[in-house]
Amino acid sequence: MEVYITREELIRALAGVQGVVERRSTHQILGFALLTAMEDFLQVTATDQEITVINRHAARILEPGVIAANAAHFFSVARILPDAPVHLVSEENHRLVVDAPPAHFRLMGTTPDDFPAVPPFEASAVLTIGSDALRQLIDYTSFAIPTDDNRYGLNGGHLESTTNAEGTPLLRMVTTDGSRLCYAEAPYQGQFGMGRHMLVPRKALVEVRKLLTDPEKEVTISFGERAATFTVGSSLLHTRLVEGEFPAYRSVLPTSWLRKVTVQRIPFLDALRRVSLEAQDRASTVRVEFSRDEVLLSARSVDQGEARHPVPISLEGAPIVMGFNVKFFLEVVNCLEEENLTFEMGEALSPCVVKAGERSDVLFIIMPIRLE
Amino acid sequence: MEVYITREELIRALAGVQGVVERRSTHQILGFALLTAMEDFLQVTATDQEITVINRHAARILEPGVIAANAAHFFSVARILPDAPVHLVSEENHRLVVDAPPAHFRLMGTTPDDFPAVPPFEASAVLTIGSDALRQLIDYTSFAIPTDDNRYGLNGGHLESTTNAEGTPLLRMVTTDGSRLCYAEAPYQGQFGMGRHMLVPRKALVEVRKLLTDPEKEVTISFGERAATFTVGSSLLHTRLVEGEFPAYRSVLPTSWLRKVTVQRIPFLDALRRVSLEAQDRASTVRVEFSRDEVLLSARSVDQGEARHPVPISLEGAPIVMGFNVKFFLEVVNCLEEENLTFEMGEALSPCVVKAGERSDVLFIIMPIRLE
Repeated sequence: MEVYITREELIRALAGVQGVVERRSTHQILGFALLTAMEDFLQVTATDQEITVINRHAARILEPGVIAANAAHFFSVARILPDAPVHLVSEENHRLVVDAPPAHFRLMGTTPDDFPAVPPFEASAVLTIGSDALRQLIDYTSFAIPTDDNRYGLNGGHLESTTNAEGTPLLRMVTTDGSRLCYAEAPYQGQFGMGRHMLVPRKALVEVRKLLTDPEKEVTISFGERAATFTVGSSLLHTRLVEGEFPAYRSVLPTSWLRKVTVQRIPFLDALRRVSLEAQDRASTVRVEFSRDEVLLSARSVDQGEARHPVPISLEGAPIVMGFNVKFFLEVVNCLEEENLTFEMGEALSPCVVKAGERSDVLFIIMPIRLE
Repeated sequence: MEVYITREELIRALAGVQGVVERRSTHQILGFALLTAMEDFLQVTATDQEITVINRHAARILEPGVIAANAAHFFSVARILPDAPVHLVSEENHRLVVDAPPAHFRLMGTTPDDFPAVPPFEASAVLTIGSDALRQLIDYTSFAIPTDDNRYGLNGGHLESTTNAEGTPLLRMVTTDGSRLCYAEAPYQGQFGMGRHMLVPRKALVEVRKLLTDPEKEVTISFGERAATFTVGSSLLHTRLVEGEFPAYRSVLPTSWLRKVTVQRIPFLDALRRVSLEAQDRASTVRVEFSRDEVLLSARSVDQGEARHPVPISLEGAPIVMGFNVKFFLEVVNCLEEENLTFEMGEALSPCVVKAGERSDVLFIIMPIRLE
């Protein structure tokens, strides 16, 4: 293998796999990236055996070839090189020469034979969706996926296909951790084909999100047997899907409300952030008192003190006092961008529906907690 | 106590003590700052019982008074307040009301009686030095003070008074960790009065450094019995001095050389940084081959690979191969700003003297290590 590649392109290529490689695995090869030089690109592959990322980057190939190199170390080396074309040459015993005069490195690679094979994948359905639309689906929902992998049925994003009133096909992503539910949808073209009892793992969504840097690009999602691939430009992410029965969420979507609150997002977000400093109990409890023109947030910590913070609102329905986990509420309010939010509520312990302005494509449900 | 203070000034006041307060001490009061409202300022005091910092900040005092508040928590609160005047009021049971509408906090303070008294201090000698001059003394030397507090005689900065050829009094700071020695001096006015077997603790130098933000200001250093104070504007830092006999460093300052190297600092720094990626043995060994026009740096790690990097030099004397701890060399080269460096050397295991351009006020000695 012999390749010339710009330093910038090499850095981008290696940066793209850092989130996938396993630095601390006992299975050392999972810390390596597979470099494949062919045609007019350098392909970089990394896998944690659940998720595989393959990126292609423009390069001048003098001799095609393949070698595996430690992804984190090679990335450190690439970032510190002089800003000039980098000459990569594989040598005997899987050594990788990285030449960027005056800097000269010879890295210990390993045989590509040890590198896990990319799992076979046969697409049974393929759809395309705008990069920005997919980014929103992920940003509005992925934070509610529990980080604890053992939450059967909750530990991934639930994807399904639906249609709006005009019959346009929509991709809908729903997530929940039992205390809140996030729901977002966006139009797509093509064919949806994900199994009913399958979820997209949190880590895959985090890594897919990193590929969505150009809002103009299209993303292709292919569905196969217990797996899916996401393709954006010259980057491909393959992920196994998590098996699990997502809760029947439609039954918890309230169909009516007794109280409706309209509030400006930024002042409400500021108030949540400030009051959260004193919400130090296990449930991060914030007391939320809705009255005619104002909501009063308050929290009290045993050690530090207490905080109170009013925010102007308009309320339809009777005043009410509720309790929430302030962190859960913060994440929802923080992921939105609209100027106004509405909360649709029932009684003190009934789910609170959060809507963003006039949007019907996103919706959040936050379960209140009992105040002591 | 009742005070109005701008949010910006309150943040600055609390930021100034964060490095001194002990967040994890079993002695809870050391996590608190003492707030004293008097005349036309709010005074903030914090101590770890070795170092005490006292800052004064412009405020409107409606009622003088004093209260102790958790420094880290109050700082978090101050940073998140709306950008408006902050109203501080002490209440019964040592509660501190922090009012910045619409945000309203009531923090649990504690009685000022529990706060450690500022140690009595009587100055036996006082000098003044420019802020920028003191900053340089600290920046050129403090990194070589061992972080291990048990290195008797090395665990602080050695200060002494000397004069230059014109008879101008100079303050000289010398530090060493046994593998390198850093030496810097700058003119001062007044009287030096530090005991012979006393050192300034590393943490005190770090905290004094934070006070030196305005290069135009003068610093007053007062010396007392096993203690010193540094005063900059309305900030005062009191530190106990560490007892310890600093090594007789003059005897290790080489008086002649066999080899003299001139090198450009930036290319040499780049080379050290790059090669350091492969200097992964316990001594962080870099091999340094000086020849007529070039120095070749190289390092090899068992796991990752090897690096080689030439840098142009001019050498007086015979070529030589030496070994150094790359981190030690990096810190020295990194703290300087001059375009050119000179290295004065003897044999392979003799100390290497690093000088910055034509400057005689700073000097570094780095001990080579034996190459295997």
